[in-house]
Amino acid sequence: VGTRPERNAPRFGANYVPSSGWFYGWLDFDADAVRRDFADLAGLGLDHVRIFPIWPWIQPNRGLIRAKAVDDVLTMIDCAAEFELDVSVDLIQGHLSSFDFLPSWVLTWHQASVFTDATVRSGLIEYASTLAGAVASRANTFAITLGNEVNNLWPANPTDLADSRSWAVELLAAARAAAPGLLLVHSLYDDAFYAPKHPFGAADATGLGDVTSVHSWVFNGVSDVDGPLGLATLTHADYLVELAQAAAEQPDRPVWLQEFGAPAPDIPADLAGRFTTATIENVWHNPALFGITWWCSHDIDRALLDFPEREYDLGLFTVDHQRKPAGQAIAELITAGARVQTLRPALVCPVDPAEPSTRDALAPGSPFHRSWVARRAGGPVAIVAPSRAADAGYLNARGITLD
Amino acid sequence: VGTRPERNAPRFGANYVPSSGWFYGWLDFDADAVRRDFADLAGLGLDHVRIFPIWPWIQPNRGLIRAKAVDDVLTMIDCAAEFELDVSVDLIQGHLSSFDFLPSWVLTWHQASVFTDATVRSGLIEYASTLAGAVASRANTFAITLGNEVNNLWPANPTDLADSRSWAVELLAAARAAAPGLLLVHSLYDDAFYAPKHPFGAADATGLGDVTSVHSWVFNGVSDVDGPLGLATLTHADYLVELAQAAAEQPDRPVWLQEFGAPAPDIPADLAGRFTTATIENVWHNPALFGITWWCSHDIDRALLDFPEREYDLGLFTVDHQRKPAGQAIAELITAGARVQTLRPALVCPVDPAEPSTRDALAPGSPFHRSWVARRAGGPVAIVAPSRAADAGYLNARGITLD
Repeated sequence: VGTRPERNAPRFGANYVPSSGWFYGWLDFDADAVRRDFADLAGLGLDHVRIFPIWPWIQPNRGLIRAKAVDDVLTMIDCAAEFELDVSVDLIQGHLSSFDFLPSWVLTWHQASVFTDATVRSGLIEYASTLAGAVASRANTFAITLGNEVNNLWPANPTDLADSRSWAVELLAAARAAAPGLLLVHSLYDDAFYAPKHPFGAADATGLGDVTSVHSWVFNGVSDVDGPLGLATLTHADYLVELAQAAAEQPDRPVWLQEFGAPAPDIPADLAGRFTTATIENVWHNPALFGITWWCSHDIDRALLDFPEREYDLGLFTVDHQRKPAGQAIAELITAGARVQTLRPALVCPVDPAEPSTRDALAPGSPFHRSWVARRAGGPVAIVAPSRAADAGYLNARGITLD
Repeated sequence: VGTRPERNAPRFGANYVPSSGWFYGWLDFDADAVRRDFADLAGLGLDHVRIFPIWPWIQPNRGLIRAKAVDDVLTMIDCAAEFELDVSVDLIQGHLSSFDFLPSWVLTWHQASVFTDATVRSGLIEYASTLAGAVASRANTFAITLGNEVNNLWPANPTDLADSRSWAVELLAAARAAAPGLLLVHSLYDDAFYAPKHPFGAADATGLGDVTSVHSWVFNGVSDVDGPLGLATLTHADYLVELAQAAAEQPDRPVWLQEFGAPAPDIPADLAGRFTTATIENVWHNPALFGITWWCSHDIDRALLDFPEREYDLGLFTVDHQRKPAGQAIAELITAGARVQTLRPALVCPVDPAEPSTRDALAPGSPFHRSWVARRAGGPVAIVAPSRAADAGYLNARGITLD
């Protein structure tokens, strides 16, 4: 086990993608294979893993939550404990690497939106309560996320801003009741911050639960600005963390960089190490940062078919446990430790970042984003919503002084 | 183990629905629970079971066929052998009791029709070959069906008559190559015989593979004619067997009454025993009959939700292994044995039963169906396609003399 970060430094972890059989491994659960993977991750000095049970295999019928499947999740958490790794559990998968896992009871003859159908919601509440309560029994479980980027389940599951929010509110309440001691997180990919017609709001990510989650993927348009080693690309994770702070009601709301990675072809393999080091150095200072969690732990075996090409090689390790450049970069950064830097100038953004209709004004390549990147060349730059620009108490709470 | 039918009598069996956990039991495979269920069925004197693996749990990725899941299927077949039960295996489930089981690699972000997409077909060929080859290793496996009523996968999976047929031809060829010694069957629910715009043809069921399969469900409209104990209702199974003979090119093509049952509310529970006895007595004489297979072995636990109401109580046994009236009726009929009756008069139907566009002229309640039922009051009545009415060789091969 490598050197761990200081207590006050942000958490550093990996999204756990099993090296053998990807998430299909849940169907043939092998605790020793999990241990072998966790040994890899602990060897980098990571302090946590984010894990992803598969909803329809745990709850294949609305009335059946398989005890053995829940036990397998607990065993995985216990394996993590053996390597001093804490665990965050995503409940509803749901969406993973282009694949949606949905039970037969919401498909075809039973077609119903997971977001809006009252019967499906009742099943999800039962599922979320049961699984949240189970994982809360383990001392090394620290957080629960409703599900991985659940907004990818749309448009297959119709919804609108109001329904998406009430869905998350309802499920988070169920998880809270079942697991009162755990941090709760609502995970959305970044259309929630950037796409005007997207039916999931940034305010859901930045206001529901305890910690804001952001996922920084530079194939979202930012690599077209100046990738792979341009400043916009290398600061996109930091930009999202700043934007999430600006969108939050609560000035001291923590932000979790819950996913980021080095996707080809945007980031060629031979630049992955430099991209990784620079991206982390550009965000790890951020005073709001709760933690950073790399996507992902292990590559995907190419015997498994139909993944988008970029998904296969995102691991810190190969499928045969060889440390890759991103893994090496992270191990070195963890040894160096985080340098939190609270004092930074701020830019007022042109629109409310929690307002859905004008989200494109803040998207990668927008005039505001470009001006932020230009200013960012000189060091960290906070973002402030226009409605907050004259709110001295708020600015003080964030430690920000406007120019 | 009860009394078995004579060697030349039609096979008599049950569609195996596990008493514990329905088909979700595959995810927690328990051979002893299977044995307990098979003991029930052997006790009725049945000679076979039809079993239903779940496709997406065996092949969760196009490139992954889980060895353990295939082994579980083989173990189930071996359990049947312990009770002297032969086994027919349906490959692609696919559809079961209103639920479609489809892998994530054909859904949402990977949306593709299982019938028409070349990549999905390549995955299905791999699956069908692997599973067919595996089950052929067991001496008590006698048949393979492509999948249970695969036409229920439409309209979620678009197709047309030509694509549906080429799909079945391709998969049957793969199964034949992998399991040359087994009977092959293509299973379609009866819209293939009755619904003019249905994109699956009766000729596929009556011409592909080795044995025609028919599924007689009186909720298809026939119970509206005179159910629950009217002659049209009680002879619908026999009508479908006769219609399938008329639609087949091959005069001696066997017909398997692969599914029939006593569904409420069409058949009230207190009439299920009489309905069962009469339906079987009305069809068991049929010289073309390969076998009859009751749907289904065991009721569905009401803790499992979202099934259509009529699906819960179709078993020969309750979930706690109590024999029901239909089970008792079948045990008594098996003891009595089949009385095959080859000589029977025939009616020429008004349209070619293999021609899709005019199928409604033969559907329950049609003038032809009503005239057949009226004539059927006097005993068995064959059906002959108009194009075959003057074909002496054909009529002779079927043992039919027209009035």
